[in-house]
Amino acid sequence: MKILAAQLNFTIGDLEGNTQKILAALQRAKRNGVDVVLFSELAITGYCPEDLLFSSSLLEKAAKQLDVIRSETQGLFVVVGVPRKNGIHQEKPLYNSAAVFSNGQLLGYKDKTLLPTYDVFDERRFFEPGKEEPVWEFLGHRIGITICEDIWRYSLAPSAFYEEDPVLVLKDKKVDLILNLSASPYCSSHKQNRLLAFQKVAKELSSPLIFCNQVGANDQLIFDGHSLYVNEKGELIQMAKGFVEDDLMVDLNTHACPCIFSENKIKDLYSALVLGARDYFHKQGFKKAILGLSGGIDSSVVACVAKEALGAENVLGVALPSRYSSKQSLSDAVLLCENLKIELQEICIDSIFQNYLDLLSSVVNGSLSSLSQENLQPRIRTAILMAIANEKGLILLNTSNKSEMAMGYATLYGDMAGGLGVLQDVKKSHVYQLAAFINARQEVIPKAIIDKEPSAELRENQTDLDTLPSYEILDAVIEDYIEAALPVEEIAEKRALSAPFLTDLIHKIHLAEYKRRQAPIGLRVTQKAFGKGRLMPIVQKWK
Amino acid sequence: MKILAAQLNFTIGDLEGNTQKILAALQRAKRNGVDVVLFSELAITGYCPEDLLFSSSLLEKAAKQLDVIRSETQGLFVVVGVPRKNGIHQEKPLYNSAAVFSNGQLLGYKDKTLLPTYDVFDERRFFEPGKEEPVWEFLGHRIGITICEDIWRYSLAPSAFYEEDPVLVLKDKKVDLILNLSASPYCSSHKQNRLLAFQKVAKELSSPLIFCNQVGANDQLIFDGHSLYVNEKGELIQMAKGFVEDDLMVDLNTHACPCIFSENKIKDLYSALVLGARDYFHKQGFKKAILGLSGGIDSSVVACVAKEALGAENVLGVALPSRYSSKQSLSDAVLLCENLKIELQEICIDSIFQNYLDLLSSVVNGSLSSLSQENLQPRIRTAILMAIANEKGLILLNTSNKSEMAMGYATLYGDMAGGLGVLQDVKKSHVYQLAAFINARQEVIPKAIIDKEPSAELRENQTDLDTLPSYEILDAVIEDYIEAALPVEEIAEKRALSAPFLTDLIHKIHLAEYKRRQAPIGLRVTQKAFGKGRLMPIVQKWK
Repeated sequence: MKILAAQLNFTIGDLEGNTQKILAALQRAKRNGVDVVLFSELAITGYCPEDLLFSSSLLEKAAKQLDVIRSETQGLFVVVGVPRKNGIHQEKPLYNSAAVFSNGQLLGYKDKTLLPTYDVFDERRFFEPGKEEPVWEFLGHRIGITICEDIWRYSLAPSAFYEEDPVLVLKDKKVDLILNLSASPYCSSHKQNRLLAFQKVAKELSSPLIFCNQVGANDQLIFDGHSLYVNEKGELIQMAKGFVEDDLMVDLNTHACPCIFSENKIKDLYSALVLGARDYFHKQGFKKAILGLSGGIDSSVVACVAKEALGAENVLGVALPSRYSSKQSLSDAVLLCENLKIELQEICIDSIFQNYLDLLSSVVNGSLSSLSQENLQPRIRTAILMAIANEKGLILLNTSNKSEMAMGYATLYGDMAGGLGVLQDVKKSHVYQLAAFINARQEVIPKAIIDKEPSAELRENQTDLDTLPSYEILDAVIEDYIEAALPVEEIAEKRALSAPFLTDLIHKIHLAEYKRRQAPIGLRVTQKAFGKGRLMPIVQKWK
Repeated sequence: MKILAAQLNFTIGDLEGNTQKILAALQRAKRNGVDVVLFSELAITGYCPEDLLFSSSLLEKAAKQLDVIRSETQGLFVVVGVPRKNGIHQEKPLYNSAAVFSNGQLLGYKDKTLLPTYDVFDERRFFEPGKEEPVWEFLGHRIGITICEDIWRYSLAPSAFYEEDPVLVLKDKKVDLILNLSASPYCSSHKQNRLLAFQKVAKELSSPLIFCNQVGANDQLIFDGHSLYVNEKGELIQMAKGFVEDDLMVDLNTHACPCIFSENKIKDLYSALVLGARDYFHKQGFKKAILGLSGGIDSSVVACVAKEALGAENVLGVALPSRYSSKQSLSDAVLLCENLKIELQEICIDSIFQNYLDLLSSVVNGSLSSLSQENLQPRIRTAILMAIANEKGLILLNTSNKSEMAMGYATLYGDMAGGLGVLQDVKKSHVYQLAAFINARQEVIPKAIIDKEPSAELRENQTDLDTLPSYEILDAVIEDYIEAALPVEEIAEKRALSAPFLTDLIHKIHLAEYKRRQAPIGLRVTQKAFGKGRLMPIVQKWK
């Protein structure tokens, strides 16, 4: 039996466009003698449409598209992810389903049983859990269908402890092929975890497992693809490419040797950011980006990502020096743009800055405090960047990293501005790793940018260390406290930090919640990003 | 039997402060010969702590506080809302519970059965549904305890269709008193709906019902209090005050005449906004606000709310005229501040504006487009307001209304800035009603401000109508499409609007999602506000 897992890049709410991609894959399947075609979770709407799922007209349209797809399934067994009304009078009106077609007929549905409702997932907001694990017979095979989370209860320490385990139900039913439709977002540890999970399930059921993942970014979520085929011994036989559309063609009849799992985490991170940025622009019909280039490492890395995502001709860098900017920073930015072949404009903000200072000194009866002056400069830069963006139809990229966002070390309406936070989930230490990766073949980011001590250059001789702990410590705390959710005592011991220091640091992270709430959406690349997946009250007294 | 429903204003995460309020209420109960004391939902942590609920140390602290409360319950039957670990190996690790104490003993728990997971509620993210409806015997009464949503399945068209109905289970168990612990947020239609719901339940069970609601605001949610007592015939006997802490003292033995339900919707709206603004400041330890005063109706109404919430001495108005501001607008703002007795500073932004225009004209090779110029002015204002705020330790109030937010008729990093969006869920038509309410006794907001045609005054002779449909039509569409979620065809017919016009308008609402995502939190006063309760993808093609 030949199986195609069609790893496609769907756009939320573009039901016609998504259907066209699905139909094209069915054509490719027919041309290649494929028997079974598998698509990803909620393929027709893209994952996840969120509250658009409450629209009756969207559901009706999804049903119509499904019927178009049905009519093109002659000679095939086809499994497509779609939301559908469940018609039962229970808590939620929808199922997150897989429609199963064969030979132009709808055979039925498998409804997702385990509904993730944690982190960035809200599925209990929309869906009722499926109640059954049907088995489908086709060409002598007993096929079990699972949707994303359905397969995770069994395999690894789960984020939610479900009562049911669809995998064990399917084991009882003696299936000999498991299909999994997923919209499993990228995060740095997930590629290997997924493989381990699927290997365990395949071995337990002595059944091959084929996983079809969505690829492409929707808002903060980046779906990495990496669809795969694990044989009945739990060996990895094939893996689709990451971060691009790909057809994973599997022939169950051919004996295939296991392939070696390999990953380059920093390369994957870079690819994820590029895909995230590209889809943010292209899926909205935007072409060109603008960003401020300070001569620092964060904006330099974002410039590289933007060039890779959009093309050099579609990126405009703007250097906006003030009296506190070093000449070195400016010349570093110039060199970066030469290396990247992107346009650089230089606009000195000092006369406007002075104009504000003069005006405000009469308002506050004296000169502005250093902090007020420091916040004023990024706000002037944002006003200029946004004016150019408005004028030329560009979208401003935000360059704040996760370490800064944790501490609120950024200015609201200043350097926190932008449509998309490219590095918002990338800790400073990983920004350095990205720079090294970018420079591996040749020096794109000038070495001076990488070597210099980080500074916002908003007052004389400023460095980040004046305000922040070392990034080594800060990033360790972010990793432990935010990403791994370890208890404070455990972090203190693990990292040999004093309890008062750590408590104070964590308190500062909580205090910055009000800033983060007004941040642009940021690409999610860890298991816990700030933003949608981390619901924190602003007004609260817990520390 | 005497019952106290202690309607208190809790702060999220302030477990010690909340416990002190609970203990003080127990003292008042003892002094007044009360038998039963009822607190609101999640009283110990405040509602809703969101992802703070994942903190083990918060849960441990809550258990400790509960034990402190237990030790003060001699001679009483006490019901307190608290999150607790459920110890069952199911989907979620917590229950949303009511702890029941009597005479210094923990009698047990009632766990919330129906968990709202829609709109602003995420309870399935944290909690497992309770499985039982225990009945508690005390002083010859059979007491049934319900937590907020538990009582709504029975009563009115619910937002979720639950299988279970705790009310019917309690009916079978023949209770003769129903207690309800709630954290039921204010919205304009909810006061009457709640009463109708509770009356229906009380009649069905032939049992008196006492409802204890949280009061006070946490982030965007405003809890209005209005705790109440309905007798076994479903007659409203007593209702606590709205928008303030209040002890609802009920004597079941005394025959009491029904009271008349009355409401003044616009007065309640005003009170809600005042409470929302005050708690945002005071619960965070802030005292003083700053806001830009354009001489328009939105900022005028916000100034009135701010004065009421914080005191005249704690509000600084700043007029920031440009070349496009009319003299009338400035003199209107002056008069408003005289009436309110709040300080007004005037800062002309024109020289800075010209400075930007000169600088940018060389960058864009010519003069800036009108749109770019229009966006630049509010950004200059924000930089100035934030500099003053930084300098003087003030918090900037945002004055955008819901109609503007729907259309994205506001400038990011400009007039969209601020810590709290006071009017973000108030449609323009309601802003006018608020102004009329404020002026009812004497003219506070100058009549000229109310009478003039709305204009952003960002170019010559601009009016809102240049860009927006009439507010009458826009507000009707917001009411139908956003708040009531009616299908487009139904709205077109109901409002006699052409389908293309309406579709285009709704498309514009969707397109502005990216702006709203960077808006400050806004006080929620309708059944559907933008923000947390409306999850919409930014990158999407559904219209």
